[in-house]
Amino acid sequence: MVLKFYASPLATCGRRVATVLWEKKIPYEFIDVDVFNGEHKTPAYLEKHPFGQIPYIEDDGFILYESRAICRYLEAKYPNKDLKLAPSPSDVKASALFEQAASVEQNNFEPHASKAAYESVLKPLFRKEPKDEATYNAAIKALSDKLDGYERILSKQKYLAGDEITLVDLFHIVYGAMLEQGGSDLMTSKGPNVARWWKDISSRASWQAVKDGIPTGSVTFD
Amino acid sequence: MVLKFYASPLATCGRRVATVLWEKKIPYEFIDVDVFNGEHKTPAYLEKHPFGQIPYIEDDGFILYESRAICRYLEAKYPNKDLKLAPSPSDVKASALFEQAASVEQNNFEPHASKAAYESVLKPLFRKEPKDEATYNAAIKALSDKLDGYERILSKQKYLAGDEITLVDLFHIVYGAMLEQGGSDLMTSKGPNVARWWKDISSRASWQAVKDGIPTGSVTFD
Repeated sequence: MVLKFYASPLATCGRRVATVLWEKKIPYEFIDVDVFNGEHKTPAYLEKHPFGQIPYIEDDGFILYESRAICRYLEAKYPNKDLKLAPSPSDVKASALFEQAASVEQNNFEPHASKAAYESVLKPLFRKEPKDEATYNAAIKALSDKLDGYERILSKQKYLAGDEITLVDLFHIVYGAMLEQGGSDLMTSKGPNVARWWKDISSRASWQAVKDGIPTGSVTFD
Repeated sequence: MVLKFYASPLATCGRRVATVLWEKKIPYEFIDVDVFNGEHKTPAYLEKHPFGQIPYIEDDGFILYESRAICRYLEAKYPNKDLKLAPSPSDVKASALFEQAASVEQNNFEPHASKAAYESVLKPLFRKEPKDEATYNAAIKALSDKLDGYERILSKQKYLAGDEITLVDLFHIVYGAMLEQGGSDLMTSKGPNVARWWKDISSRASWQAVKDGIPTGSVTFD
Protein backbone atom coordinates (compact mmCIF):
# COMPACT_ATOMS: atom_id res chain seq x y z
CA MET A 1 0.00 0.00 0.00
CA VAL A 2 1.36 3.38 -0.93
CA LEU A 3 2.60 5.70 1.83
CA LYS A 4 -0.06 8.14 3.03
CA PHE A 5 1.28 11.60 3.73
CA TYR A 6 -0.97 13.86 5.82
CA ALA A 7 -0.04 17.53 5.66
CA SER A 8 -0.97 20.87 4.15
CA PRO A 9 0.70 21.83 0.84
CA LEU A 10 2.60 24.81 2.27
CA ALA A 11 3.37 23.33 5.68
CA THR A 12 6.92 24.06 6.81
CA CYS A 13 7.62 20.64 8.30
CA GLY A 14 5.62 18.98 5.53
CA ARG A 15 8.00 20.41 2.96
CA ARG A 16 10.90 18.97 4.99
CA VAL A 17 9.40 15.49 4.60
CA ALA A 18 8.55 16.12 0.94
CA THR A 19 12.18 17.00 0.19
CA VAL A 20 13.24 13.58 1.45
CA LEU A 21 10.43 11.79 -0.42
CA TRP A 22 11.73 13.51 -3.56
CA GLU A 23 15.39 12.67 -2.86
CA LYS A 24 14.53 9.02 -2.25
CA LYS A 25 11.86 8.94 -5.00
CA ILE A 26 9.34 7.32 -2.66
CA PRO A 27 5.77 7.35 -4.05
CA TYR A 28 3.07 8.75 -1.80
CA GLU A 29 -0.57 9.74 -1.60
CA PHE A 30 -1.08 13.23 -0.24
CA ILE A 31 -4.01 13.83 2.12
CA ASP A 32 -4.71 17.50 2.76
CA VAL A 33 -5.43 18.20 6.44
CA ASP A 34 -7.83 21.12 6.74
CA VAL A 35 -5.81 23.03 9.32
CA PHE A 36 -7.62 26.28 8.54
CA ASN A 37 -10.82 24.75 9.91
CA GLY A 38 -9.09 23.05 12.83
CA GLU A 39 -9.25 19.45 11.58
CA HIS A 40 -5.94 18.78 13.35
CA LYS A 41 -7.50 19.57 16.75
CA THR A 42 -10.44 17.17 16.49
CA PRO A 43 -10.57 14.09 18.77
CA ALA A 44 -10.31 11.79 15.73
CA TYR A 45 -7.11 13.53 14.58
CA LEU A 46 -5.64 13.60 18.10
CA GLU A 47 -5.99 9.80 18.15
CA LYS A 48 -3.47 9.73 15.29
CA HIS A 49 -1.30 12.63 16.44
CA PRO A 50 -1.43 13.42 20.19
CA PHE A 51 -0.10 16.96 19.69
CA GLY A 52 -2.51 17.91 16.88
CA GLN A 53 0.15 18.97 14.37
CA ILE A 54 1.08 18.23 10.79
CA PRO A 55 2.57 16.25 9.12
CA TYR A 56 2.15 12.60 9.91
CA ILE A 57 2.43 9.50 7.75
CA GLU A 58 0.67 6.16 7.63
CA ASP A 59 2.76 3.40 6.11
CA ASP A 60 0.77 0.19 5.86
CA GLY A 61 -0.93 0.92 9.17
CA PHE A 62 2.17 2.28 10.90
CA ILE A 63 1.57 5.86 12.04
CA LEU A 64 4.44 8.26 12.63
CA TYR A 65 4.64 12.00 13.30
CA GLU A 66 7.44 14.58 13.76
CA SER A 67 8.99 15.54 10.45
CA ARG A 68 12.59 14.65 11.30
CA ALA A 69 11.54 11.26 12.68
CA ILE A 70 9.57 10.59 9.49
CA CYS A 71 12.60 11.44 7.35
CA ARG A 72 14.84 9.20 9.47
CA TYR A 73 12.32 6.36 9.14
CA LEU A 74 12.20 6.69 5.35
CA GLU A 75 15.98 6.56 5.25
CA ALA A 76 16.15 3.58 7.64
CA LYS A 77 13.54 1.68 5.63
CA TYR A 78 15.14 2.42 2.25
CA PRO A 79 18.86 3.02 2.99
CA ASN A 80 19.99 2.01 -0.48
CA LYS A 81 17.19 3.56 -2.53
CA ASP A 82 18.49 6.42 -4.64
CA LEU A 83 20.63 8.71 -2.49
CA LYS A 84 21.95 7.37 0.84
CA LEU A 85 21.25 10.11 3.41
CA ALA A 86 22.64 8.77 6.70
CA PRO A 87 25.57 6.62 7.79
CA SER A 88 24.94 2.94 8.46
CA PRO A 89 24.12 2.37 12.16
CA SER A 90 26.96 -0.15 12.34
CA ASP A 91 29.41 2.72 11.81
CA VAL A 92 29.22 4.02 15.39
CA LYS A 93 31.55 7.00 14.95
CA ALA A 94 30.02 8.21 11.67
CA SER A 95 26.58 7.84 13.25
CA ALA A 96 27.75 9.84 16.28
CA LEU A 97 28.92 12.67 14.01
CA PHE A 98 25.57 12.53 12.21
CA GLU A 99 23.76 12.80 15.56
CA GLN A 100 26.03 15.65 16.59
CA ALA A 101 25.08 17.53 13.42
CA ALA A 102 21.39 16.69 13.90
CA SER A 103 21.53 18.13 17.39
CA VAL A 104 23.30 21.27 16.11
CA GLU A 105 20.49 21.83 13.61
CA GLN A 106 17.84 21.51 16.29
CA ASN A 107 19.59 23.55 18.97
CA ASN A 108 21.65 26.11 17.10
CA PHE A 109 19.79 26.69 13.84
CA GLU A 110 16.06 25.98 14.10
CA PRO A 111 15.14 28.02 17.22
CA HIS A 112 16.58 31.25 15.81
CA ALA A 113 15.81 30.66 12.12
CA SER A 114 12.19 29.75 12.85
CA LYS A 115 11.75 32.85 15.02
CA ALA A 116 13.15 35.12 12.30
CA ALA A 117 11.02 33.34 9.68
CA TYR A 118 7.91 33.72 11.81
CA GLU A 119 8.44 37.46 12.25
CA SER A 120 9.37 38.22 8.66
CA VAL A 121 7.25 35.77 6.67
CA LEU A 122 4.64 33.78 8.61
CA LYS A 123 3.25 36.51 10.89
CA PRO A 124 2.70 39.04 8.07
CA LEU A 125 1.21 36.30 5.87
CA PHE A 126 -1.15 34.52 8.28
CA ARG A 127 -1.79 37.07 11.02
CA LYS A 128 -1.58 40.18 8.83
CA GLU A 129 0.69 41.78 11.41
CA PRO A 130 4.05 43.43 10.75
CA LYS A 131 7.20 41.87 12.11
CA ASP A 132 8.44 42.99 15.51
CA GLU A 133 11.81 44.48 14.57
CA ALA A 134 13.45 43.91 17.96
CA THR A 135 12.46 40.24 18.08
CA TYR A 136 13.52 39.74 14.46
CA ASN A 137 16.88 41.46 14.92
CA ALA A 138 17.64 39.46 18.07
CA ALA A 139 16.89 36.20 16.25
CA ILE A 140 19.07 37.16 13.28
CA LYS A 141 21.90 38.18 15.63
CA ALA A 142 21.67 34.91 17.58
CA LEU A 143 21.60 32.88 14.38
CA SER A 144 24.52 34.83 12.94
CA ASP A 145 26.61 33.98 16.02
CA LYS A 146 25.76 30.29 15.63
CA LEU A 147 26.63 30.39 11.93
CA ASP A 148 30.18 31.32 12.97
CA GLY A 149 30.33 27.75 14.27
CA TYR A 150 28.88 26.47 10.99
CA GLU A 151 31.59 28.34 9.09
CA ARG A 152 34.26 26.65 11.26
CA ILE A 153 32.78 23.22 10.56
CA LEU A 154 32.21 23.76 6.85
CA SER A 155 35.72 25.09 6.33
CA LYS A 156 36.92 21.55 7.13
CA GLN A 157 34.29 19.35 5.50
CA LYS A 158 31.76 19.56 2.70
CA TYR A 159 28.56 18.93 4.67
CA LEU A 160 27.46 19.26 8.27
CA ALA A 161 28.03 15.62 9.25
CA GLY A 162 31.09 14.98 7.04
CA ASP A 163 31.92 14.94 3.36
CA GLU A 164 28.66 13.32 2.28
CA ILE A 165 25.27 14.97 2.26
CA THR A 166 22.85 13.67 4.90
CA LEU A 167 19.32 14.26 6.11
CA VAL A 168 20.71 16.87 8.50
CA ASP A 169 21.73 19.18 5.66
CA LEU A 170 18.28 18.85 4.13
CA PHE A 171 16.64 19.65 7.49
CA HIS A 172 17.98 23.22 7.21
CA ILE A 173 16.45 24.07 3.86
CA VAL A 174 12.88 25.08 4.77
CA TYR A 175 13.83 27.75 7.29
CA GLY A 176 16.97 28.77 5.42
CA ALA A 177 14.81 29.54 2.38
CA MET A 178 12.32 31.40 4.55
CA LEU A 179 15.10 33.62 5.88
CA GLU A 180 15.85 34.66 2.30
CA GLN A 181 12.15 35.14 1.61
CA GLY A 182 11.96 37.43 4.64
CA GLY A 183 14.78 39.62 3.33
CA SER A 184 17.86 38.25 5.16
CA ASP A 185 21.03 37.44 3.21
CA LEU A 186 22.60 35.65 6.19
CA MET A 187 22.88 32.28 4.45
CA THR A 188 25.05 33.74 1.68
CA SER A 189 26.81 36.58 3.53
CA LYS A 190 28.08 34.80 6.64
CA GLY A 191 31.17 33.24 5.15
CA PRO A 192 32.37 31.48 2.00
CA ASN A 193 31.77 27.97 3.31
CA VAL A 194 28.28 28.54 4.67
CA ALA A 195 27.43 30.22 1.33
CA ARG A 196 28.84 27.30 -0.69
CA TRP A 197 26.96 24.77 1.44
CA TRP A 198 23.73 26.75 1.33
CA LYS A 199 23.83 27.19 -2.46
CA ASP A 200 24.52 23.46 -2.84
CA ILE A 201 21.64 22.20 -0.68
CA SER A 202 19.04 24.82 -1.63
CA SER A 203 19.53 24.31 -5.36
CA ARG A 204 18.83 20.57 -5.22
CA ALA A 205 16.07 19.27 -7.47
CA SER A 206 14.24 17.85 -4.43
CA TRP A 207 13.76 21.26 -2.85
CA GLN A 208 13.00 22.94 -6.16
CA ALA A 209 10.18 20.41 -6.64
CA VAL A 210 8.48 21.10 -3.32
CA LYS A 211 9.46 24.61 -2.26
CA ASP A 212 6.40 26.37 -3.66
CA GLY A 213 4.01 23.74 -2.33
CA ILE A 214 4.04 19.98 -1.86
CA PRO A 215 2.72 18.28 -4.99
CA THR A 216 -0.61 16.75 -4.00
CA GLY A 217 -2.62 13.69 -5.00
CA SER A 218 -0.99 10.37 -5.85
CA VAL A 219 2.64 10.99 -6.71
CA THR A 220 4.95 8.47 -8.36
CA PHE A 221 8.48 8.72 -9.71
CA ASP A 222 8.44 6.53 -12.83
CA MET B 1 42.04 5.01 27.72
CA VAL B 2 39.27 6.23 29.98
CA LEU B 3 36.63 8.53 28.55
CA LYS B 4 37.38 12.22 29.09
CA PHE B 5 34.34 14.28 29.97
CA TYR B 6 34.71 18.05 29.61
CA ALA B 7 32.04 20.06 31.40
CA SER B 8 31.30 22.14 34.47
CA PRO B 9 29.90 20.33 37.54
CA LEU B 10 26.53 22.12 37.48
CA ALA B 11 26.14 22.34 33.69
CA THR B 12 22.61 21.52 32.55
CA CYS B 13 23.59 19.50 29.50
CA GLY B 14 26.56 18.04 31.36
CA ARG B 15 24.21 16.54 33.93
CA ARG B 16 22.22 15.00 31.04
CA VAL B 17 25.37 13.17 29.91
CA ALA B 18 26.29 12.28 33.49
CA THR B 19 22.89 10.62 34.01
CA VAL B 20 23.62 8.29 31.11
CA LEU B 21 27.18 7.61 32.27
CA TRP B 22 25.67 6.59 35.63
CA GLU B 23 22.94 4.43 34.06
CA LYS B 24 25.49 2.62 31.89
CA LYS B 25 28.17 2.64 34.61
CA ILE B 26 30.79 3.95 32.19
CA PRO B 27 33.98 5.18 33.93
CA TYR B 28 35.18 8.67 33.08
CA GLU B 29 37.68 11.35 33.93
CA PHE B 30 36.06 14.71 34.54
CA ILE B 31 37.82 17.82 33.23
CA ASP B 32 36.42 21.06 34.58
CA VAL B 33 36.10 23.71 31.85
CA ASP B 34 36.54 27.16 33.36
CA VAL B 35 33.45 28.70 31.77
CA PHE B 36 33.38 31.53 34.31
CA ASN B 37 36.65 32.80 32.86
CA GLY B 38 35.68 32.12 29.24
CA GLU B 39 37.88 29.10 28.61
CA HIS B 40 35.18 27.76 26.25
CA LYS B 41 35.57 30.77 23.95
CA THR B 42 39.35 30.51 23.45
CA PRO B 43 40.72 29.54 20.01
CA ALA B 44 42.16 26.31 21.48
CA TYR B 45 38.74 25.29 22.82
CA LEU B 46 36.94 26.28 19.61
CA GLU B 47 39.21 23.83 17.78
CA LYS B 48 37.56 21.08 19.82
CA HIS B 49 34.05 22.53 19.94
CA PRO B 50 33.20 24.98 17.11
CA PHE B 51 30.29 26.51 19.06
CA GLY B 52 32.24 27.07 22.29
CA GLN B 53 29.83 25.20 24.57
CA ILE B 54 30.00 22.44 27.17
CA PRO B 55 30.02 19.46 27.40
CA TYR B 56 32.16 17.52 25.01
CA ILE B 57 33.88 14.16 25.32
CA GLU B 58 37.11 12.70 24.07
CA ASP B 59 37.04 8.93 23.71
CA ASP B 60 40.43 7.61 22.69
CA GLY B 61 40.97 10.64 20.44
CA PHE B 62 37.39 10.78 19.14
CA ILE B 63 35.86 14.15 20.00
CA LEU B 64 32.10 14.61 20.23
CA TYR B 65 29.87 17.44 21.44
CA GLU B 66 26.11 18.02 21.88
CA SER B 67 24.79 16.26 24.97
CA ARG B 68 22.13 14.17 23.26
CA ALA B 69 24.57 13.03 20.57
CA ILE B 70 27.05 12.04 23.29
CA CYS B 71 24.37 10.00 25.10
CA ARG B 72 23.37 8.29 21.83
CA TYR B 73 27.03 7.48 21.12
CA LEU B 74 27.53 5.91 24.55
CA GLU B 75 24.43 3.78 24.01
CA ALA B 76 25.49 2.78 20.48
CA LYS B 77 28.99 1.85 21.67
CA TYR B 78 27.77 -0.13 24.70
CA PRO B 79 24.23 -1.30 23.80
CA ASN B 80 24.32 -4.29 26.13
CA LYS B 81 26.17 -2.74 29.07
CA ASP B 82 23.88 -2.45 32.08
CA LEU B 83 20.56 -0.91 31.01
CA LYS B 84 19.68 -0.91 27.30
CA LEU B 85 18.44 2.62 26.53
CA ALA B 86 17.48 2.56 22.84
CA PRO B 87 15.99 0.04 20.42
CA SER B 88 18.35 -1.89 18.14
CA PRO B 89 18.76 -0.03 14.81
CA SER B 90 17.67 -3.20 13.00
CA ASP B 91 14.18 -2.74 14.48
CA VAL B 92 13.14 0.00 12.06
CA LYS B 93 9.69 0.66 13.55
CA ALA B 94 10.82 0.71 17.18
CA SER B 95 13.66 3.01 16.16
CA ALA B 96 11.19 5.28 14.35
CA LEU B 97 9.06 5.54 17.51
CA PHE B 98 12.21 6.32 19.49
CA GLU B 99 13.09 9.08 17.01
CA GLN B 100 9.53 10.39 17.17
CA ALA B 101 9.82 10.65 20.96
CA ALA B 102 13.28 12.23 20.68
CA SER B 103 11.88 14.86 18.36
CA VAL B 104 8.95 15.52 20.72
CA GLU B 105 11.39 16.16 23.57
CA GLN B 106 13.38 18.62 21.50
CA ASN B 107 10.44 20.44 19.92
CA ASN B 108 7.65 20.23 22.47
CA PHE B 109 9.39 20.04 25.84
CA GLU B 110 12.86 21.61 25.83
CA PRO B 111 12.09 25.04 24.28
CA HIS B 112 9.40 25.87 26.84
CA ALA B 113 10.90 24.06 29.84
CA SER B 114 14.30 25.67 29.31
CA LYS B 115 12.73 29.13 29.02
CA ALA B 116 10.76 28.66 32.26
CA ALA B 117 13.87 27.25 33.96
CA TYR B 118 15.97 30.18 32.80
CA GLU B 119 13.51 32.73 34.16
CA SER B 120 12.85 31.03 37.48
CA VAL B 121 16.22 29.46 38.31
CA LEU B 122 19.16 30.37 36.07
CA LYS B 123 18.56 34.12 35.64
CA PRO B 124 18.11 34.80 39.38
CA LEU B 125 21.13 32.60 40.17
CA PHE B 126 23.67 33.75 37.59
CA ARG B 127 22.45 37.20 36.56
CA LYS B 128 20.99 38.22 39.92
CA GLU B 129 17.85 39.40 38.13
CA PRO B 130 14.26 38.49 39.00
CA LYS B 131 12.24 36.39 36.60
CA ASP B 132 10.12 38.18 34.02
CA GLU B 133 6.66 37.01 35.05
CA ALA B 134 5.07 37.40 31.60
CA THR B 135 7.81 35.40 29.87
CA TYR B 136 7.73 32.75 32.58
CA ASN B 137 3.94 32.41 32.51
CA ALA B 138 3.88 32.16 28.71
CA ALA B 139 6.49 29.38 28.82
CA ILE B 140 4.60 27.47 31.50
CA LYS B 141 1.35 27.84 29.55
CA ALA B 142 2.96 26.61 26.31
CA LEU B 143 4.55 23.66 28.11
CA SER B 144 1.30 22.82 29.84
CA ASP B 145 -0.46 22.62 26.46
CA LYS B 146 2.24 20.28 25.15
CA LEU B 147 2.01 18.11 28.24
CA ASP B 148 -1.60 17.41 27.27
CA GLY B 149 -0.04 15.47 24.39
CA TYR B 150 2.33 13.74 26.81
CA GLU B 151 -0.64 12.71 28.96
CA ARG B 152 -2.32 11.19 25.87
CA ILE B 153 0.82 9.22 25.02
CA LEU B 154 1.57 8.10 28.57
CA SER B 155 -2.01 6.93 29.13
CA LYS B 156 -1.27 4.22 26.54
CA GLN B 157 2.34 3.27 27.28
CA LYS B 158 4.77 3.38 30.18
CA TYR B 159 7.47 5.55 28.64
CA LEU B 160 7.69 8.12 25.88
CA ALA B 161 8.97 5.75 23.17
CA GLY B 162 7.05 2.64 24.28
CA ASP B 163 6.95 0.38 27.33
CA GLU B 164 10.69 0.42 27.95
CA ILE B 165 12.68 3.35 29.29
CA THR B 166 14.99 4.98 26.74
CA LEU B 167 17.45 7.84 26.51
CA VAL B 168 14.56 10.09 25.52
CA ASP B 169 12.92 9.80 28.94
CA LEU B 170 16.22 10.62 30.62
CA PHE B 171 16.66 13.67 28.36
CA HIS B 172 13.71 15.33 30.14
CA ILE B 173 15.06 15.11 33.66
CA VAL B 174 17.38 18.12 33.90
CA TYR B 175 14.81 20.72 32.89
CA GLY B 176 11.92 18.88 34.51
CA ALA B 177 13.78 19.05 37.83
CA MET B 178 14.58 22.73 37.27
CA LEU B 179 10.88 23.46 36.77
CA GLU B 180 10.24 22.07 40.25
CA GLN B 181 13.20 23.99 41.64
CA GLY B 182 11.69 27.17 40.17
CA GLY B 183 8.37 26.59 41.91
CA SER B 184 6.26 24.91 39.21
CA ASP B 185 4.30 21.75 40.03
CA LEU B 186 3.49 21.11 36.35
CA MET B 187 5.28 17.75 36.17
CA THR B 188 3.10 16.31 38.94
CA SER B 189 -0.15 18.27 38.48
CA LYS B 190 -0.72 17.88 34.74
CA GLY B 191 -2.30 14.43 34.80
CA PRO B 192 -1.88 11.05 36.48
CA ASN B 193 0.25 9.55 33.72
CA VAL B 194 2.67 12.42 33.36
CA ALA B 195 2.99 12.42 37.18
CA ARG B 196 3.64 8.66 37.27
CA TRP B 197 6.23 8.91 34.50
CA TRP B 198 7.93 11.93 36.04
CA LYS B 199 8.19 10.35 39.51
CA ASP B 200 9.64 7.20 37.91
CA ILE B 201 12.36 8.88 35.90
CA SER B 202 13.32 11.60 38.36
CA SER B 203 13.74 9.18 41.26
CA ARG B 204 16.26 7.00 39.42
CA ALA B 205 19.60 6.43 41.15
CA SER B 206 21.42 7.86 38.11
CA TRP B 207 19.80 11.27 38.47
CA GLN B 208 20.06 11.25 42.26
CA ALA B 209 23.81 10.73 41.86
CA VAL B 210 24.38 13.72 39.58
CA LYS B 211 21.56 16.18 40.23
CA ASP B 212 23.42 18.32 42.76
CA GLY B 213 26.60 18.37 40.70
CA ILE B 214 28.47 15.97 38.47
CA PRO B 215 30.95 13.94 40.52
CA THR B 216 34.39 15.11 39.42
CA GLY B 217 37.83 13.55 39.12
CA SER B 218 38.34 9.97 37.96
CA VAL B 219 35.09 8.07 38.46
CA THR B 220 34.73 4.29 38.31
CA PHE B 221 31.85 1.95 39.08
CA ASP B 222 33.46 -1.05 40.74
